[in-house]
Amino acid sequence: MTAQIKIRPVIMSGGTGTRLWPMSRGARPKQFLALASDKTLIQETLDRVRVEASSPFLPPLLIGAERHAKLMNDQATDIGVTLAGIVCEPAPRNTAAVAAVAAAWVEAAGAGDLVLLMPADHHIADAEGFRRAVIAAAPQAAAGRIVTFGVKPTEAHTGYGYIERGETLEGDVYAIKAFREKPDAATAAAYLAGGRHFWNAGIFLFSPRTMISELQRLAPEIACGALSALEKASAEGGVIRLDKSEFEACPSDSIDYAVMEKTDKAAVIAPVDVGWSDIGAWPSVEKVGDEANVIRVDADGAIVATDGPLVGVVGLDDVIVVATGDSVLVMPKSRAQDVKKIVDELKARGRTDLL
Amino acid sequence: MTAQIKIRPVIMSGGTGTRLWPMSRGARPKQFLALASDKTLIQETLDRVRVEASSPFLPPLLIGAERHAKLMNDQATDIGVTLAGIVCEPAPRNTAAVAAVAAAWVEAAGAGDLVLLMPADHHIADAEGFRRAVIAAAPQAAAGRIVTFGVKPTEAHTGYGYIERGETLEGDVYAIKAFREKPDAATAAAYLAGGRHFWNAGIFLFSPRTMISELQRLAPEIACGALSALEKASAEGGVIRLDKSEFEACPSDSIDYAVMEKTDKAAVIAPVDVGWSDIGAWPSVEKVGDEANVIRVDADGAIVATDGPLVGVVGLDDVIVVATGDSVLVMPKSRAQDVKKIVDELKARGRTDLL
Repeated sequence: MTAQIKIRPVIMSGGTGTRLWPMSRGARPKQFLALASDKTLIQETLDRVRVEASSPFLPPLLIGAERHAKLMNDQATDIGVTLAGIVCEPAPRNTAAVAAVAAAWVEAAGAGDLVLLMPADHHIADAEGFRRAVIAAAPQAAAGRIVTFGVKPTEAHTGYGYIERGETLEGDVYAIKAFREKPDAATAAAYLAGGRHFWNAGIFLFSPRTMISELQRLAPEIACGALSALEKASAEGGVIRLDKSEFEACPSDSIDYAVMEKTDKAAVIAPVDVGWSDIGAWPSVEKVGDEANVIRVDADGAIVATDGPLVGVVGLDDVIVVATGDSVLVMPKSRAQDVKKIVDELKARGRTDLL
Repeated sequence: MTAQIKIRPVIMSGGTGTRLWPMSRGARPKQFLALASDKTLIQETLDRVRVEASSPFLPPLLIGAERHAKLMNDQATDIGVTLAGIVCEPAPRNTAAVAAVAAAWVEAAGAGDLVLLMPADHHIADAEGFRRAVIAAAPQAAAGRIVTFGVKPTEAHTGYGYIERGETLEGDVYAIKAFREKPDAATAAAYLAGGRHFWNAGIFLFSPRTMISELQRLAPEIACGALSALEKASAEGGVIRLDKSEFEACPSDSIDYAVMEKTDKAAVIAPVDVGWSDIGAWPSVEKVGDEANVIRVDADGAIVATDGPLVGVVGLDDVIVVATGDSVLVMPKSRAQDVKKIVDELKARGRTDLL
């Protein structure tokens, strides 16, 4: 146990989640929907790192789009979570810039605190198991490692990034031998069988100083832009608005590409076996609203999501049906990734009212 | 040509069309929807028998439910058709009672006129061909035959009733050898190959006196109830409201069972080859609203009907998707008859708001 180390959750809420259209919309993307439980995904995420006597967590910082500032605040208020603040990005600049802002904010707020950087739109069934993993990873993070969370694969998934573990650092924390992006099916099967490759959950635990210095070394433009954007930010009532021109000047890159694949400070705690899902597409959605508005005839296996309309499905077990008041999506589970084609066509038709 | 014989179209608009749920609703059933052209089916039907110098048709009488009286009137007005009147049924009593009312009304309105009794919710592509068949059948109807219209089968359909023709009466008008209800597939195939069996279009041409006397002989309770209901009807502004207790006392039966299968006056004009369809279920719907609200990805063959919501379909060629603001139906074309199961479940759940 490392109860003396305090951990600041920084929750990235900038995603747009178009793979879950038509439920996920620009005005209310995926993280603001209840797709795995009665709570929204961002509320699940806030719940997961609650400030309690027995936990190392400090009040969380949320980072997301300006247009969602009120929504982010309301989501926290609704479940009785007090935020450290809400940082508004003037434009999306991917996760490296967010990591820089997070690190700089946390360093300014309390020397010695760690940053737990995580997406707002994932589901983790075993929150207690996740907290144990965070606490177990904390000493290595405090010692200067940027620790990723290596989820134990449950299938030969070809859509995820994999982390191959290297030598043991401490307990379940390993150095990283390699990052492997979206393998082909045979490679993914070998990864699953081998036991040395883990899904990259996109969650990071690090000391602010380490992240800042690695960004300054490996992605100096991002570090410079993001830190300047925070320095010149306006703050009002807990809402921090990053400087627009500085932040927009940041190159857009992921923390994985900008830092993790280059730094020698990367580590992974693995296997993390906590029922993690990124709810990346409709087949991974577990809870989809009120079954009272669904009628199934020979369609028990169908995924049916509705936020209001009555949906009747007959004789299709392998289908996904998503219905909102203004849009309906129908496709076989095997084509779930192709929702992108519908979204692209909506853009081409200028139907931004539906996006 | 029999230009001297006048024909009174009586259009039966009492159907509820639940097989086309969720578009077809109690408040606006199938006949009031545009499912085969830009006009609604009842408007197509009115159009088919327009009063013109060259046609034998008198202004039409509509018979339907009280709740649709205004809708029926508006449908006619919208296309510039002047009605002879609208008869409101206090309760549905099937087609035999309607035939009795129609015959009695026409007999009272003009001795010697024929009745062309037909459903409001069918599509006939070749309206001119249909009119020619009506005119060709008129002499036999005037001579005391109840003439049905035998549609030339285009497939071995197992859902229709078939009429087997007997000896020739005059031209294409035959006596009827037998009525055959919904044959099995092998029988339907034999009918199709044989050329002596025709689909029963549910359209009848007859003199009022013949129909009344046959009903009085073969279904006296229906004749008595229906005629009393018309005698005691209230009439106001072209709307004739049948007497409730008299009409409700009529046994509910179809004109086919009550009269046609028993009378020796039945005849059929055949083959009638006019692009007839009863639009009995979603696979036979030709036109389904604005394709501007449909996005297809590998789904050119799908039947997609929407009265507003955007519908995106991916990778399903054999599917039917019907979307209204409050309901969505998804099923393979082969299961189109099972919409009834959804409707039954809605009734069981008390969701009359959606029916």
